[in-house]
Amino acid sequence: MVEEEIMRNTRSKEPLLTEIATHAISSGGKRMRPGIALLSFRAVGGTDLKKTIMAAAAFELIHSATLVHDDINDGAETRRGSIAAYRKYGTQRALITGDFLFVRGFRLGGLLQSEDIVELVADACSQMAESEMLQTIIENDSGLPFDTYFRIITGKTAKPIEASAQVGAYIGGGSPDQIAGMGTYGLNIGLAFQIVDDILDIIGDESDLGKKRGMDVLDGKANLPLMIAMQGHYPNSARLREIYGKKEKTMEEVEEALRLVQATDAVDVARKHAEDLRIKALASLDVLPESEFKDALKALADTVLSRDR
Amino acid sequence: MVEEEIMRNTRSKEPLLTEIATHAISSGGKRMRPGIALLSFRAVGGTDLKKTIMAAAAFELIHSATLVHDDINDGAETRRGSIAAYRKYGTQRALITGDFLFVRGFRLGGLLQSEDIVELVADACSQMAESEMLQTIIENDSGLPFDTYFRIITGKTAKPIEASAQVGAYIGGGSPDQIAGMGTYGLNIGLAFQIVDDILDIIGDESDLGKKRGMDVLDGKANLPLMIAMQGHYPNSARLREIYGKKEKTMEEVEEALRLVQATDAVDVARKHAEDLRIKALASLDVLPESEFKDALKALADTVLSRDR
Repeated sequence: MVEEEIMRNTRSKEPLLTEIATHAISSGGKRMRPGIALLSFRAVGGTDLKKTIMAAAAFELIHSATLVHDDINDGAETRRGSIAAYRKYGTQRALITGDFLFVRGFRLGGLLQSEDIVELVADACSQMAESEMLQTIIENDSGLPFDTYFRIITGKTAKPIEASAQVGAYIGGGSPDQIAGMGTYGLNIGLAFQIVDDILDIIGDESDLGKKRGMDVLDGKANLPLMIAMQGHYPNSARLREIYGKKEKTMEEVEEALRLVQATDAVDVARKHAEDLRIKALASLDVLPESEFKDALKALADTVLSRDR
Repeated sequence: MVEEEIMRNTRSKEPLLTEIATHAISSGGKRMRPGIALLSFRAVGGTDLKKTIMAAAAFELIHSATLVHDDINDGAETRRGSIAAYRKYGTQRALITGDFLFVRGFRLGGLLQSEDIVELVADACSQMAESEMLQTIIENDSGLPFDTYFRIITGKTAKPIEASAQVGAYIGGGSPDQIAGMGTYGLNIGLAFQIVDDILDIIGDESDLGKKRGMDVLDGKANLPLMIAMQGHYPNSARLREIYGKKEKTMEEVEEALRLVQATDAVDVARKHAEDLRIKALASLDVLPESEFKDALKALADTVLSRDR
């Protein structure tokens, strides 16, 4: 039903707009935000699905809008295993389609007619933009403080997942404690998700990922294992910082950087961080009564850690 | 008060985002959408300003978001007499700022908690995206039908102005007839506004405009006087179509095209169209009782026709 709601909202009177919007939204996304919204809704005992489906679709539409724009900004070649929208249709048309998906997402969110929901969604989206902006400022900064890293991944990944969980619980009629607990769950799962993303960029299998490894190194993006391995007490950290700090890097340098990170325990240290966040997320589920939905939220937390794409 | 509401909503925790958003929104815009929303509101006898101010600010924030993105897509050098945001701050940061302004605009619209308002705003924004997309398809098409031209300017300019007028009257407690009448006013004023924009691109004074003339010719954008002069029965129309149809044009060719259009009565014919639309707009004001606000709406219609920037 969420999928149908999403697809209804990608339709436009301009066939090319419908085509690009459909391309952007249907290329094998994980649908994590809708999934978490629905599970949170059910886990607090919600029964009236209609509003939750609208909210879940809104989160995915907005998420897809940001992905289309991110890919333009990052010069990404592929997204979710398919060619990035702007590569296939050109930057102009991708930019317009991103705006269109934003509009359709916010429309659905606005139709819920709840000040709380509008504020939650808008706050998450504002923080996404703030993080994206911060990311452009700290590019290639080999001395980036860890708290700046966490500020970036909170805004760009964790906040929208937190909002999905909160809105699901809110529409489901959850208590303030339950809504807050689901928010904590979403926030921590989101942080863990991004750290695993960072790890996959260092050691992932390119055919599983559907994209090239080492993109964070190449683009000078903040990446946790990389940042760990760039610390002074690590062997070869000076060479890593030298490569990472370059504005233009060759693919040989990127490969060298990946090998240098892989030669340390940085990936294990980063994974330990993600594991700690998973445990925090699970603890916050104590606000929920036992149910198959609570079990599914636990299982989802495991999947976030064990995923290979 | 609208200006304060706008400025409050450009503020972000990321100083650079605040700076670019402020640059985008404060470079001398006409504030036509807020103005029409406020006048419609007052003209139907509305008294509680708070919601109207939020709506008026929402329209301007969304409008500014689309301008920032449009300038990226058009490769524009200046906007409202200042350097275009993406030229000053780079494409990535301008794209992010546009998204941010969208979010802040939709947030304000959503906070009004009215399904009707959300649908009006979202429909106008969807049609804007559809028109922008259509515009990318018909670039440099020297045989563009006039109805396609009107479809484009309806979506890109007239719809948001129609929505501003409708929402103002709606919040002011106008009758269904009054809301519809204000919509007709806004739609026709919007169409006339865009035709005058087209005329100014052919004959305007560059220092008044704050941008170069002939941009529509250069970019292969639909422009009414140009389309009129490209019709077969006009002298030199073949040469005009030849220049306009080129993907790459020299500035000499653009200047030649402007001279060829200026040598015909195309600008006068286009102005007659705009004048007819102004009369339609004025007629739709019959739904309003006499008031200083109705007079101001009439005066605004005159200004739209007589403006030189």
